[in-house]
Amino acid sequence: MTSIPSSLPLRNDLIGEEPYGAPQLDVPVCLNVNENPYPLDDEVADTIARRVREVAQNLNRYPDREHIKLRQAFCDYLAYESGTRLGVEQLWGANGSNEIMLQIFQAFGGPGRTALGCDPTYSMYPEYARDTFTSWKVIHRKGDFTIDLDKTIEGITSIGPSIVLLTSPNNPTGTNLPLSDVKTLLAICEQTQVAGAQEGTHPVVIIDEAYVEFRNPGTPSAVSLIPEHHNLAVSRTMSKAFAFAGARVGYLAADAGIIDCLRIVRMPYHLSAITQAAALAAFEHTDLQLKRVAKLRETREETAAWLRSQQYHGSNLQVADSESNFLLFGKFDDRMLVFNKLLSRGILIRVVGPDHWLRVCMGTEREMSTFRTAFAEVLATIDKQQ
Amino acid sequence: MTSIPSSLPLRNDLIGEEPYGAPQLDVPVCLNVNENPYPLDDEVADTIARRVREVAQNLNRYPDREHIKLRQAFCDYLAYESGTRLGVEQLWGANGSNEIMLQIFQAFGGPGRTALGCDPTYSMYPEYARDTFTSWKVIHRKGDFTIDLDKTIEGITSIGPSIVLLTSPNNPTGTNLPLSDVKTLLAICEQTQVAGAQEGTHPVVIIDEAYVEFRNPGTPSAVSLIPEHHNLAVSRTMSKAFAFAGARVGYLAADAGIIDCLRIVRMPYHLSAITQAAALAAFEHTDLQLKRVAKLRETREETAAWLRSQQYHGSNLQVADSESNFLLFGKFDDRMLVFNKLLSRGILIRVVGPDHWLRVCMGTEREMSTFRTAFAEVLATIDKQQ
Repeated sequence: MTSIPSSLPLRNDLIGEEPYGAPQLDVPVCLNVNENPYPLDDEVADTIARRVREVAQNLNRYPDREHIKLRQAFCDYLAYESGTRLGVEQLWGANGSNEIMLQIFQAFGGPGRTALGCDPTYSMYPEYARDTFTSWKVIHRKGDFTIDLDKTIEGITSIGPSIVLLTSPNNPTGTNLPLSDVKTLLAICEQTQVAGAQEGTHPVVIIDEAYVEFRNPGTPSAVSLIPEHHNLAVSRTMSKAFAFAGARVGYLAADAGIIDCLRIVRMPYHLSAITQAAALAAFEHTDLQLKRVAKLRETREETAAWLRSQQYHGSNLQVADSESNFLLFGKFDDRMLVFNKLLSRGILIRVVGPDHWLRVCMGTEREMSTFRTAFAEVLATIDKQQ
Repeated sequence: MTSIPSSLPLRNDLIGEEPYGAPQLDVPVCLNVNENPYPLDDEVADTIARRVREVAQNLNRYPDREHIKLRQAFCDYLAYESGTRLGVEQLWGANGSNEIMLQIFQAFGGPGRTALGCDPTYSMYPEYARDTFTSWKVIHRKGDFTIDLDKTIEGITSIGPSIVLLTSPNNPTGTNLPLSDVKTLLAICEQTQVAGAQEGTHPVVIIDEAYVEFRNPGTPSAVSLIPEHHNLAVSRTMSKAFAFAGARVGYLAADAGIIDCLRIVRMPYHLSAITQAAALAAFEHTDLQLKRVAKLRETREETAAWLRSQQYHGSNLQVADSESNFLLFGKFDDRMLVFNKLLSRGILIRVVGPDHWLRVCMGTEREMSTFRTAFAEVLATIDKQQ
């Protein structure tokens, strides 16, 4: 894939690395990158074009560096979605939650600093760490993919990380992180000295809630804890539930002090006038944008039940409990075999997470029907071969 | 401005830092951030809205991570503008040349690595270095703001930087870097070992051509040297001549090996589908977008001549020779006094570059007339007070 001449001074630790990312293949059914499968309504697309037209004439000027209107829209949306109203100074946007995370690692990471997570988890985290020379340490989750609270506490107190990065629901397992665990870890962090940092500093706790809108109804968001905790930040994205992956809009809810730290390392004018206008347009139609979330939750429950009823080597398949729009299922002796057999039938899922498991994200009714038919065939073929 | 609690583990070297960026003040005449003063034509704005509408429905899907169509458009534009036709694998885009530069520093910089520039130069360069833990060294330019070739060669050979970052035309001085100097420095770099990197690696040479379209007609671009030099990269932007600052589109022309290095550190899906569509739309109207460039060049020459005719403390003002859309002029005993007196008259220019100098960018005819009137008044006031 890459053809890097040895005369280029690529960072020593990047030599041999490949660019991150799932293959972008042109297949009939893409269930590999946890996208929302439903296209935007005409009405929303029209508003986006109209709002972009309104700012287009003045694109000769730089955008509002502080993206105040958009931060206000994030506040309003969070109040609506989570029930917690924050101030505009407690919100921050960027080009995808990727960029949010990079800014967090740029501000709080670096040589001599450690970020701590609970694996299996999102495979980009080690890349943010690598890109910022931050050490990345993981505490293993339990067999059911919930976090091991005792070992996580032990890890925090013994390592003194500057960043504790937790994911709820977790990717690729779909596991919810109970708010009681977040509270416990916040209390621990508030008493923990960060190694390599000034006396009296405590870890920042980042809860990555990229998929949070798919959680089971009644489950609280960590956003509700922000007013009480200066070192807590909750990362979100418009990519998933909001069906806006192509627009690249992530955001962070946190104490204003944390936002001020990100403002030091952010690229000036990082968020274009067009991105700001498009995101504001989408927020004019929040209900329309979110209308498929309940449907996708149903699809997840149906698909999980169906997968659990499937036989592999004489036993029922396992499916991790998920509060997201994807399912981790297994275990397969040879997951690449299953993946490739599905791919040859035009269905792209993801080889990610612990060995022997595969991840599939929820598509439309029709896509899931195609997936079920193909997957049943694949299982039958494998059974016959053995 | 910032209110960062001391309990947050902000990187030690960032404590006390302020976010980068010129003040975004609401004044009648903004001549501070080198924007193109001419709004986009209706026709271009319409095309942008139409192209965005075409992609809007599918924003539920991630964008083309490799932004192939846009890279093809960069190729075509460079062939048109510079006369050199490169391949799509030799072009790369990002959210402003800011992000391009950050990716370069992420790939080739880091602890133990040094980037070398010639100051006074663009004030973001030390920030890219700081954000990536790269050491930033400068060789001082000569009195006329041309680079000191001998001292630069000496700096390169003695330091062994991984990045040599030169700017043409330079910001904030407007100085062109002759292609013969670029060739000389490339030859030196191709024989220089990078300190802290593997044996046989040579510095990458980055020519920042953000303002290059404003250069004097007939001056070649460093893009013409790319086919012959694996370690050369030329950074460009649509912000300035192309009047597209609000859309945040920068790009890099370089050997495919350099692009492959950037692909390792770039955020996945860093360039939104909307940004890609908007930039492609602008390239459908290249002539319209560039139609004010010649006018702005004239404005620069007229303004330079006028400024040189102005008296300060009984002598004519100095103006640095500029091939850009801005002028550095001085010298003032107290440049803040001049800046503030202009600001109180509704004109915002920039306090940047060497002490005693100020920078003004070229506005519309009317804005420049307002500037001249106000500046003449300010000079008269200052003379009277002394």
